[in-house]
Amino acid sequence: MTPFVPHHLPATALRDLDMIGTAVFAVSGALVAARAQQNVVTFMFFAALTGVGGGTVRDLLIGAPVFWMHGSLTIAICLLMAWLVWLTPVRWWSAHAVDWFDGVGLAAYAVYGAAKALAYDIPGLPAAIMGVVTACVGGIFRDVLANMPSIVIRPEIYVTAAALSAGCYVFAQYMGLDPTLTALGAFSLGFGLRAVAIRYHLSLPSYRTR
Amino acid sequence: MTPFVPHHLPATALRDLDMIGTAVFAVSGALVAARAQQNVVTFMFFAALTGVGGGTVRDLLIGAPVFWMHGSLTIAICLLMAWLVWLTPVRWWSAHAVDWFDGVGLAAYAVYGAAKALAYDIPGLPAAIMGVVTACVGGIFRDVLANMPSIVIRPEIYVTAAALSAGCYVFAQYMGLDPTLTALGAFSLGFGLRAVAIRYHLSLPSYRTR
Amino acid sequence: MTPFVPHHLPATALRDLDMIGTAVFAVSGALVAARAQQNVVTFMFFAALTGVGGGTVRDLLIGAPVFWMHGSLTIAICLLMAWLVWLTPVRWWSAHAVDWFDGVGLAAYAVYGAAKALAYDIPGLPAAIMGVVTACVGGIFRDVLANMPSIVIRPEIYVTAAALSAGCYVFAQYMGLDPTLTALGAFSLGFGLRAVAIRYHLSLPSYRTR
Repeated sequence: MTPFVPHHLPATALRDLDMIGTAVFAVSGALVAARAQQNVVTFMFFAALTGVGGGTVRDLLIGAPVFWMHGSLTIAICLLMAWLVWLTPVRWWSAHAVDWFDGVGLAAYAVYGAAKALAYDIPGLPAAIMGVVTACVGGIFRDVLANMPSIVIRPEIYVTAAALSAGCYVFAQYMGLDPTLTALGAFSLGFGLRAVAIRYHLSLPSYRTR
Repeated sequence: MTPFVPHHLPATALRDLDMIGTAVFAVSGALVAARAQQNVVTFMFFAALTGVGGGTVRDLLIGAPVFWMHGSLTIAICLLMAWLVWLTPVRWWSAHAVDWFDGVGLAAYAVYGAAKALAYDIPGLPAAIMGVVTACVGGIFRDVLANMPSIVIRPEIYVTAAALSAGCYVFAQYMGLDPTLTALGAFSLGFGLRAVAIRYHLSLPSYRTR
Repeated sequence: MTPFVPHHLPATALRDLDMIGTAVFAVSGALVAARAQQNVVTFMFFAALTGVGGGTVRDLLIGAPVFWMHGSLTIAICLLMAWLVWLTPVRWWSAHAVDWFDGVGLAAYAVYGAAKALAYDIPGLPAAIMGVVTACVGGIFRDVLANMPSIVIRPEIYVTAAALSAGCYVFAQYMGLDPTLTALGAFSLGFGLRAVAIRYHLSLPSYRTR
């Protein structure tokens, strides 16, 4: 492994981030189905779409085999999360708690996506964007299909937190820092920013018609 | 060919199912354009998108060459169906009749998609999901672009019928049963469920806010 | 290079068309973000999605490496265009001017997309459709995410102009004509049709419920 472009992922830290991301996003997808009072098949559809959507687009773009097609574990996690939400009262899942879990998934997926892109020899700028895609596209699919305004056009800081995590990870890798420490640091920065945004309803300044 | 993972498709039965699926979905796409009083180019756009959309996503996910890119027949069928709908009065195409044709396409595509995924060495669970994707994604694209509520969030049994066909096909293949007979049986079960759903407006129980 | 299926693109003319298409569509994406009074991250998201969306789908369909993943220039152009729109008053970008620039991008991308598909041995009919996909899909993504009626279902001639450019290019290549001259001619025809449509609000006849 060269210090600049890691050719294999630091297995432990990053794979754990991946499973956390999948499970957390699957829950957020199933909860959208719950609020729309859908049936159990729709729960599974939304859980899977939200759970694996971002990583799927990333893999197609970087030319990797789609990560959930060559084993049954990832998609089984999504379907299990759908059943879990289906079998429990929706009030157990406070919107607030889900926002926090979703923040964990967001930062985890942003780091993992950028790391996987670097491992496939993608240059820094598109690799950082792959982190953002991994973190945000599942939620975008969920919102478009549920006919809700997409996370991209909501004012609160969200995509920006993913960009921070992904950008820091790529930058630190180009500096030659340790991948595992970098992953943890970049995760913490993105999650921290998202946490502040959730707590204080922080948003970036918006464009004013001048 | 091993009994568990078929390495080539039973050519006759499955390829026929494929052409039926393409033509039927292309008609359903063109009819959405007709009801929105669009022009002939939009007819062709919706016919092609609905006709090949599901199979395209399946092929990208399983790593196969996109099925309609290496010949002109499939896409020509879509464009011909668009012209056919354009040249005929919309009342010739009763919504009821279209529902029935669409049910044929749904079950046919679900079986064909699962079989193709198995032929590309995809494990059982994701292969069954590829059947559902092949059957449902074209219609989802059509609905999102036409700004209609997607088939996924309508109450009537639809995705479930595709899941039944795809799941039964995969299960029977793992049992080592004859692919052609399995394809016909799995098609009949899914189409039967959809037929009952159309006839009696059957839907799965929905989640109630508890 | 055979006269019928060019195995490399006429580098100068076509690559210039590509960069023009990316920049122009990126601006049109950023302007949608500006009108919705979004923040700078959303500007960049819409600029990138609109700028590279069509070419990305084309590359996935024809089995080519996604064009903006193996260098930083293309995506950097998109982000720069987003900053440019962010830093300037929206009234500098008259809707009329943008329509004209967009028309240039439309015809340029239609020719470039069809040429790239032919270079990847895609037959004529799907290759022409790849031109239309390259030209129109970025705008469709933009409109779906911004919750606007998509360019596909607006009455004015738009997709048709892309189809004219792409179809003429493919036809002339099958006739064995010079690729650079053909590219310029096909570009001019599509842009000319779109120009007439913008100037006189031209639309194709629509389907009437008969």
